Amino acid sequence: MAGGNTKKRSQKAGLPAGTLIHIGEQKTERTTITIIAYEDGNSREVDLSELEQYIASKNSNEVIWVNINGIHQAAIVETIGRIFHLHPLSLEDIMNTDQRPKMEEYKNYIFIVLKKLFYDEPTRRIKDDQISLVLGNSFLISFQESEPDMFTPVREAIRKRRGRISEAGADYLAYSLVDMAVDNYFLTMEKLGEDIEALEDNLVKNPEGQTLRSIHRLKRELIFLRKTVWPLREVVGDLERTGSTFIQESTIIYLRDIYDHVIHVVDTIETFREIVSGMLDIYLSSVSNKMNEVMKVLTIIATIFIPLTWIAGIYGMNFEHIPELKMRFGYPLVMLCMGAIGILMLVYFKRKKWF
Amino acid sequence: MAGGNTKKRSQKAGLPAGTLIHIGEQKTERTTITIIAYEDGNSREVDLSELEQYIASKNSNEVIWVNINGIHQAAIVETIGRIFHLHPLSLEDIMNTDQRPKMEEYKNYIFIVLKKLFYDEPTRRIKDDQISLVLGNSFLISFQESEPDMFTPVREAIRKRRGRISEAGADYLAYSLVDMAVDNYFLTMEKLGEDIEALEDNLVKNPEGQTLRSIHRLKRELIFLRKTVWPLREVVGDLERTGSTFIQESTIIYLRDIYDHVIHVVDTIETFREIVSGMLDIYLSSVSNKMNEVMKVLTIIATIFIPLTWIAGIYGMNFEHIPELKMRFGYPLVMLCMGAIGILMLVYFKRKKWF
Amino acid sequence: MAGGNTKKRSQKAGLPAGTLIHIGEQKTERTTITIIAYEDGNSREVDLSELEQYIASKNSNEVIWVNINGIHQAAIVETIGRIFHLHPLSLEDIMNTDQRPKMEEYKNYIFIVLKKLFYDEPTRRIKDDQISLVLGNSFLISFQESEPDMFTPVREAIRKRRGRISEAGADYLAYSLVDMAVDNYFLTMEKLGEDIEALEDNLVKNPEGQTLRSIHRLKRELIFLRKTVWPLREVVGDLERTGSTFIQESTIIYLRDIYDHVIHVVDTIETFREIVSGMLDIYLSSVSNKMNEVMKVLTIIATIFIPLTWIAGIYGMNFEHIPELKMRFGYPLVMLCMGAIGILMLVYFKRKKWF
Amino acid sequence: MAGGNTKKRSQKAGLPAGTLIHIGEQKTERTTITIIAYEDGNSREVDLSELEQYIASKNSNEVIWVNINGIHQAAIVETIGRIFHLHPLSLEDIMNTDQRPKMEEYKNYIFIVLKKLFYDEPTRRIKDDQISLVLGNSFLISFQESEPDMFTPVREAIRKRRGRISEAGADYLAYSLVDMAVDNYFLTMEKLGEDIEALEDNLVKNPEGQTLRSIHRLKRELIFLRKTVWPLREVVGDLERTGSTFIQESTIIYLRDIYDHVIHVVDTIETFREIVSGMLDIYLSSVSNKMNEVMKVLTIIATIFIPLTWIAGIYGMNFEHIPELKMRFGYPLVMLCMGAIGILMLVYFKRKKWF
Amino acid sequence: MAGGNTKKRSQKAGLPAGTLIHIGEQKTERTTITIIAYEDGNSREVDLSELEQYIASKNSNEVIWVNINGIHQAAIVETIGRIFHLHPLSLEDIMNTDQRPKMEEYKNYIFIVLKKLFYDEPTRRIKDDQISLVLGNSFLISFQESEPDMFTPVREAIRKRRGRISEAGADYLAYSLVDMAVDNYFLTMEKLGEDIEALEDNLVKNPEGQTLRSIHRLKRELIFLRKTVWPLREVVGDLERTGSTFIQESTIIYLRDIYDHVIHVVDTIETFREIVSGMLDIYLSSVSNKMNEVMKVLTIIATIFIPLTWIAGIYGMNFEHIPELKMRFGYPLVMLCMGAIGILMLVYFKRKKWF
Repeated sequence: MAGGNTKKRSQKAGLPAGTLIHIGEQKTERTTITIIAYEDGNSREVDLSELEQYIASKNSNEVIWVNINGIHQAAIVETIGRIFHLHPLSLEDIMNTDQRPKMEEYKNYIFIVLKKLFYDEPTRRIKDDQISLVLGNSFLISFQESEPDMFTPVREAIRKRRGRISEAGADYLAYSLVDMAVDNYFLTMEKLGEDIEALEDNLVKNPEGQTLRSIHRLKRELIFLRKTVWPLREVVGDLERTGSTFIQESTIIYLRDIYDHVIHVVDTIETFREIVSGMLDIYLSSVSNKMNEVMKVLTIIATIFIPLTWIAGIYGMNFEHIPELKMRFGYPLVMLCMGAIGILMLVYFKRKKWF
Repeated sequence: MAGGNTKKRSQKAGLPAGTLIHIGEQKTERTTITIIAYEDGNSREVDLSELEQYIASKNSNEVIWVNINGIHQAAIVETIGRIFHLHPLSLEDIMNTDQRPKMEEYKNYIFIVLKKLFYDEPTRRIKDDQISLVLGNSFLISFQESEPDMFTPVREAIRKRRGRISEAGADYLAYSLVDMAVDNYFLTMEKLGEDIEALEDNLVKNPEGQTLRSIHRLKRELIFLRKTVWPLREVVGDLERTGSTFIQESTIIYLRDIYDHVIHVVDTIETFREIVSGMLDIYLSSVSNKMNEVMKVLTIIATIFIPLTWIAGIYGMNFEHIPELKMRFGYPLVMLCMGAIGILMLVYFKRKKWF
Repeated sequence: MAGGNTKKRSQKAGLPAGTLIHIGEQKTERTTITIIAYEDGNSREVDLSELEQYIASKNSNEVIWVNINGIHQAAIVETIGRIFHLHPLSLEDIMNTDQRPKMEEYKNYIFIVLKKLFYDEPTRRIKDDQISLVLGNSFLISFQESEPDMFTPVREAIRKRRGRISEAGADYLAYSLVDMAVDNYFLTMEKLGEDIEALEDNLVKNPEGQTLRSIHRLKRELIFLRKTVWPLREVVGDLERTGSTFIQESTIIYLRDIYDHVIHVVDTIETFREIVSGMLDIYLSSVSNKMNEVMKVLTIIATIFIPLTWIAGIYGMNFEHIPELKMRFGYPLVMLCMGAIGILMLVYFKRKKWF
Repeated sequence: MAGGNTKKRSQKAGLPAGTLIHIGEQKTERTTITIIAYEDGNSREVDLSELEQYIASKNSNEVIWVNINGIHQAAIVETIGRIFHLHPLSLEDIMNTDQRPKMEEYKNYIFIVLKKLFYDEPTRRIKDDQISLVLGNSFLISFQESEPDMFTPVREAIRKRRGRISEAGADYLAYSLVDMAVDNYFLTMEKLGEDIEALEDNLVKNPEGQTLRSIHRLKRELIFLRKTVWPLREVVGDLERTGSTFIQESTIIYLRDIYDHVIHVVDTIETFREIVSGMLDIYLSSVSNKMNEVMKVLTIIATIFIPLTWIAGIYGMNFEHIPELKMRFGYPLVMLCMGAIGILMLVYFKRKKWF
Repeated sequence: MAGGNTKKRSQKAGLPAGTLIHIGEQKTERTTITIIAYEDGNSREVDLSELEQYIASKNSNEVIWVNINGIHQAAIVETIGRIFHLHPLSLEDIMNTDQRPKMEEYKNYIFIVLKKLFYDEPTRRIKDDQISLVLGNSFLISFQESEPDMFTPVREAIRKRRGRISEAGADYLAYSLVDMAVDNYFLTMEKLGEDIEALEDNLVKNPEGQTLRSIHRLKRELIFLRKTVWPLREVVGDLERTGSTFIQESTIIYLRDIYDHVIHVVDTIETFREIVSGMLDIYLSSVSNKMNEVMKVLTIIATIFIPLTWIAGIYGMNFEHIPELKMRFGYPLVMLCMGAIGILMLVYFKRKKWF
């Protein structure tokens, strides 16, 4: 997983800084671009071909939101970059899906990278998609790795004038998109929580080699999750604290709300980590208990029958003079003796609570 | 537990930000509202229907305390929000019981979320109820999840002019409520301390699979507790340091006192965690000691009787020429020999301190 | 231990804030009060009955030191509090022996709580007594839980004009008392160091269940110690850094010295923790080595004699046609054979370094 | 490894501070020096003999880059030091390859030490080479331990006017060199990731002693890596934040990019550490599972046949009166009995899920 | 070790603050004092008897260095203290060898405590000697616990005008002494590194109880080392940052160099700790592997021969009607049968990779 990501990144090791190459898995065939402009509740669609011209004549208060799904085509990313005057390093970061969540201030925009998480049911693994946001003076550009477009509900809200979004600025739009991504984390955490509970039930009922592997799968997922969510805390915190003109005073209170959510997710991850770590202890202890069970059975059987076999062996000896052998009730007496020894041992083990 | 909470939160993942939905378990049927206004020791009850009108004509120094038990009805929360001009995000947080303790400053009020803890005797689990406080300019609103109203003693003290509370401001009232919640933590810690001591006794007497599960139950309770209490430290610290006009100079010294109590609880939780962690070591070591005991019994019996059985086997062979078989005292001699070997081995094991 | 402390605290959970109740074990019958006033080397005793009048007419440079042994009588604490204008919260803290070491600045005094430690020989446990100091403008009040009065040597030094103390201010007196308490920690650490060394010797010689319990006793003592000493670091650091007028410039250098001592104690505690933690590893490893020893004995005996018994079994079969049975030297040959097998196996085990 | 490095350093313990001695392995025979000067896209080679004269007459905006491969000859390092007025401590650091990555500001230059990492295929170990950079007012000196020259692509880009480098200043050149080194880390991480994955496969298939050693080899490599990469974070961070005149405003954005890469590498190292640490758990658990397997086989065989052997022993006794021996179907009955006991036991073990 | 140190300190617990008592082991018989004064390369020896007079008439730029070997005589330390106006607390610290490294600023001097480390070959333990430095306005006093004088090479360099030391100030002299002590640490680390490597070889070849004790010896040495070196980081850092007039601007760059060395030693200690910690894992795993080996031998022998012995037992029964016993080739057939069973089992174990 981690090894796979770095592998891809190494393709770039030889190339001069500034070359645009898509790093990461290509998750969609086509690149879809949706552009919407809105102000005071009124919205209209803009075509990519009109975009450049639109920007030139743009009403300064109208918000324009450009959403790109699919980031593997360098030409498109470069075009967008040229139109909005994005720094080459930002373009590189957009096309490289192996990024940590981060927030960077440039002169003319704020650049935000975060991750969308989703739980892949068939493989039971958590996967991530990179989302890059460019928030400038009444414009927002969002890049997603693949279809389906996660932000459709927000676009609908703008079109249908739902909530305050269609009347707010680009910063509130950015907030809405980040909020949508973070809300999605709760779904992933829920799935993970279910997995953990299922495993916990299993742990008590029948611990087996499979269980151990499941614990380790969970552990790795949690390492991966922490790596993904942890830096987001700083990203949102920085957004809150930056005195950037691109973020209005009234939006900061909303960012604080996202910050709380991220902390909540981080807390849950840490709690899960501690629980899973405790599960390993229970697993190892269960295995060792089973071993003890086995040893006790062995010990009970062996310690009862080994002495009895020895007694049988004694009277199987061929000495000419063994008086007991000629006794009338020798055989039943020996049998009684053996039975008594066996019962005494069982009582002893019972008192020792071996069974 | 944790998984259960996130599950509920995920219901909201699809909805636009700002929708008021109760998240969490509904713990009471009805919503009870109690309103009391007081100044210089005189107090009077106010009815919900008069509240809006009262606010309009309110004497600026009179303190009004609105307490709501039951937070699942969005309409009531919205009404209160409208009357006191609360921010939509605060209303959302009030109705979402899956919050971390936090303290947030708004323009016209300070918003505080904390948890009430109680030890549920039948299930031996620690449960929590969310308390939200809104402290404004001579008003305080408190939201609790369920009956019984935890703050009744404070209300009585106001009515009966006990202590300085009925003459102090809304900030001292807020302090009293937080103090009451934190004092309650000590009761919970005490119950937990008793559980730990009981388990510790059990650990030495008879360690069994049940013990391990109890240790893990305690571990999880402590993870949960830490998650609940830890952020409160910051909340109270922030209250102390905030230069807010809603908190008077003279009240800060009382907040410092609560801060000490919270630190004390946090310390106790950490100590409990270390103790429980040490109990796991003792448990595993006890189990392993029991296993050793079993192995020693097996070894003693087997190593004594296996050689003796072999000797019996030798004289059970059917060779025609085994001179010993014809000896007059062959049998008693062999028996003596066997006894000697057995005793020598027992002496050896005794010296090795195997029993 | 920890559970016991919280239990006591919970008695207060129902009462209104500000009620004076003694929390903790009552360690003395009577309350003894000693008051001494001194200036420029001259000292005189003051009686409790004269105290109030004395304060009123007090020469501003004369230092008055009030020492109270026994804090369970609310009336006495209240009287002192009234005379010196102490805040109700300070009085509460003085009577509650379940405090973390702390330092709090009030308008008219600095309030310091710390712990006296002593090693209780019979139970081999570390116990603590709470010391509260109130340092004001040329007055110092010290509260101790029990007799004997730990500060007698300091009082003697004042009476007999030993050292610079009888000529210095109340802050230097406060320093001397704290220094005396901290110096006492070294004695406790020494006792603990001896316990650890004794246990370490024992660990190598004969590890047994008792050893494990001793390790855990030490671990808990160290958790308790850390909890007690750790916050003192901050207390002394804060005293050093506070710009309070109650502490003179020249005394700060002495506080720095105490700070060093506290750090030294904290360091030693951490070192002890690491050593004790390492002892657990050695213990578990020793136990496992003993188990291996047992298994090897079992294996050597069983693997040698089980095959030999089988051989004996073969020639004990009753087939009519077993040619060996009729051979003249069958028996001695078989015996030689068995001996050879046994010796070969022993050689094999020897080479495997099993014994 | 670590011990080897310190060993070399100790050679210097007796010598006065300031003596130039090469510390570390000599990795190349000859010292190669390449000097290139460039401005506005035009570049020219400079010979070492001309260097001093060149510096005197240097156009202030022209950038001169001196690259030295091989640092074991004190004379050459001293010459360079004299020409560029380097501090004796810098020269010492250049010749001592046992340095932590660091960044130090001197009056006339910034001194940077970092490490080049490469994965040595035959030994499967990660090795490092030290790179020292001296960034001054339009000059850069780079020292490498050995051939091949890692920076050849950058020199080519300057010669052939590729990218913006040939038109930018010495600070951008320094950035390019550091970037090249850091990009190289991704290759190393990728190799390590492959090793980890290979080991993980092996772990499940057949855990053996070799596996444990491989885990520990990886662990040590990761300790070494962390030690090497971790301080680089601070180095790049300091470069970003230093207000030095040697670094232009426009270059800082590029340093931030390197910073991100370093954080990414650090994150991956931490993730690898957690994974490798988890592998140890799986390994130990697999070994213990194998042991259980062995114990179960032993127990099944022993507990079935020991009682049966005892029965056979009974009817092998030589008592004169054992009625069963004379029964017509005594033998087949006993055989049936034995078969029944064996089958019952197998059923019991099957239900216990022992096989 | 640690316990031993605190023990000594406790002697002082009863005494009034300010009493000069030597705490620690007395490591030398006599106290040797060497005084040298130098300026601009010229140096001369000064006798202790002349010292006081010399100080009075001292040329303000001449540096005087007083070195004392042996600190157990309170009279000498007091004399020096009186001549140079040292604070009583400094004198106490000089005579107490149980100090943490520290740096304290007084009005007229800077007081530095650090440790000299050396590896004691016979006992293979790391020992420490305390060095106290008092750096004032062109004077330096150094206290060492014992002969031989570690600083002889520096004195020689002053006498023979080697390096810049004889022309620099007292701060550069202080730097040289600290540097000498820190360089010495590398020798100790090297010895420790050799010990670790030797132990590591041993670990793979033959793990035994002795190995475990060696690991724990190393662990304790590393705890001790960390405790000694860790605070030095802060000491040197503080020296660098203090704006004291006793340290010239040009010397700070040299202190930064020492700081790097100390960080390097701290890093190596941490690396060693992680390696030694990993060695414990390998040791425990090796022991457990040996145990498995033993169990496998037992299982193979027992599971093969126990069933065969049963078969032999069957045909040893005395039933009158056992048809096989009368068969012509009964005996060889049974023997073949047994051989086949044995071989089949061996094949099974081989396939299970038990041997």
